[in-house]
Amino acid sequence: MPNPTAAMLVIGDEILSGRTHDSNTHHLAGRLTDAGIDLKEARVVSDDRDSIIKAVRDLASRFDHVFTSGGIGPTHDDITADCIAAAFEDTIDVRADARAILQDHYDAQGLELNAARLRMARIPSRAILIENPVSKAPGFILENVHVMAGVPRIFQAMVASVLPGLTGGDPLISETWRVDQGEGDIAAPLAELTRDHPNVSFGCYPFQKDGKFGANIVARSQDRQTLSAAFQALQETFPQ
Amino acid sequence: MPNPTAAMLVIGDEILSGRTHDSNTHHLAGRLTDAGIDLKEARVVSDDRDSIIKAVRDLASRFDHVFTSGGIGPTHDDITADCIAAAFEDTIDVRADARAILQDHYDAQGLELNAARLRMARIPSRAILIENPVSKAPGFILENVHVMAGVPRIFQAMVASVLPGLTGGDPLISETWRVDQGEGDIAAPLAELTRDHPNVSFGCYPFQKDGKFGANIVARSQDRQTLSAAFQALQETFPQ
Repeated sequence: MPNPTAAMLVIGDEILSGRTHDSNTHHLAGRLTDAGIDLKEARVVSDDRDSIIKAVRDLASRFDHVFTSGGIGPTHDDITADCIAAAFEDTIDVRADARAILQDHYDAQGLELNAARLRMARIPSRAILIENPVSKAPGFILENVHVMAGVPRIFQAMVASVLPGLTGGDPLISETWRVDQGEGDIAAPLAELTRDHPNVSFGCYPFQKDGKFGANIVARSQDRQTLSAAFQALQETFPQ
Repeated sequence: MPNPTAAMLVIGDEILSGRTHDSNTHHLAGRLTDAGIDLKEARVVSDDRDSIIKAVRDLASRFDHVFTSGGIGPTHDDITADCIAAAFEDTIDVRADARAILQDHYDAQGLELNAARLRMARIPSRAILIENPVSKAPGFILENVHVMAGVPRIFQAMVASVLPGLTGGDPLISETWRVDQGEGDIAAPLAELTRDHPNVSFGCYPFQKDGKFGANIVARSQDRQTLSAAFQALQETFPQ
């Protein structure tokens, strides 16, 4: 059975302007691979209502799971929650369960749960909350979309809390073999290996070190025996 | 007049599996901002023919410029050039101009221009070549799509060679002001500033340092005078 599929949607002008480097996609990619869920697409869109709604609808209809990052804070440009509700024609308002979490948190710090902070309790009516162990303001799951914070430490904590609830497939396992030849010499024998081992995917990642060309060849499969046979053939094709 | 718009398309399973971290989008984002071209969307898709063609057509129809990275090497999974040709219903084959560049390069190194390396001379018939000062295999421009290598050093060199040929708008200029308060306290006054200065965009980027909350507020505008007035108001709203 093929693995479940997923897409990542990063929301934020600051990524597209080059101010901030997105590290959440790379983090999610690794965790999904470990879980046997295939990340098929990643997107970054700006803090624009129409762009967010269009992207969410497109990705949610094409993949089993969608993960979003960014735009759920207290400021005026944090519009993700409202856009997700609109994408699925749900209503959205301050919800008692989310409000209670924030009230406890700010009470404990002696801070006021003001109007801006209360925006973080705006949750679509049909959504399930995602716990935020770092700064309390929750994420949420609506249909197949997981809405999470953009701050990497919070994003990672939320990923860790939602992944165990998803059914994964067999994780992809991989073996890497270093070949000290240029990619142009590797390509033909590698194409032959690819034909001979249809259930293994081979990737070729060239590098240049101390003026010499080489490449790491990565063989990937969901089945350990299939991978072993292909990896042995790979080593025999490019002996060291 | 609004700035020209752009999208980035990263092609490669290795990004989606978490093996490789994409740094090209961040690089392009910064260069486009300097050039007065607005990066509106970035996408990562896998080495899959249908996914690449669909993404190229969608982005090329919605934005003034598209930049791609990855999938133009000599191996079996390098299918970007063929997909771009298909997306624009152009023919593709080994082209004499690209072949001559590779022939010179490999002759000089005493290496054979074998079938695998010759794949890198496959260029759509209507495309214009992009120079590759690092490893010679050219990129190309077809319609509004700039097709470039995935290796960061080559990608950056290609960006440097194509950007001067594009007409940009007024570059976005920005000023940053650090506020030592939590985002929840900043949000309401910041929303008021946003209303008072409609031609300036304000971004709020929270941080936590030594246990204290703060945020960098970035004001951006294409006009220096407009920005100055807004930045002065920002400083007065959040005095240090």
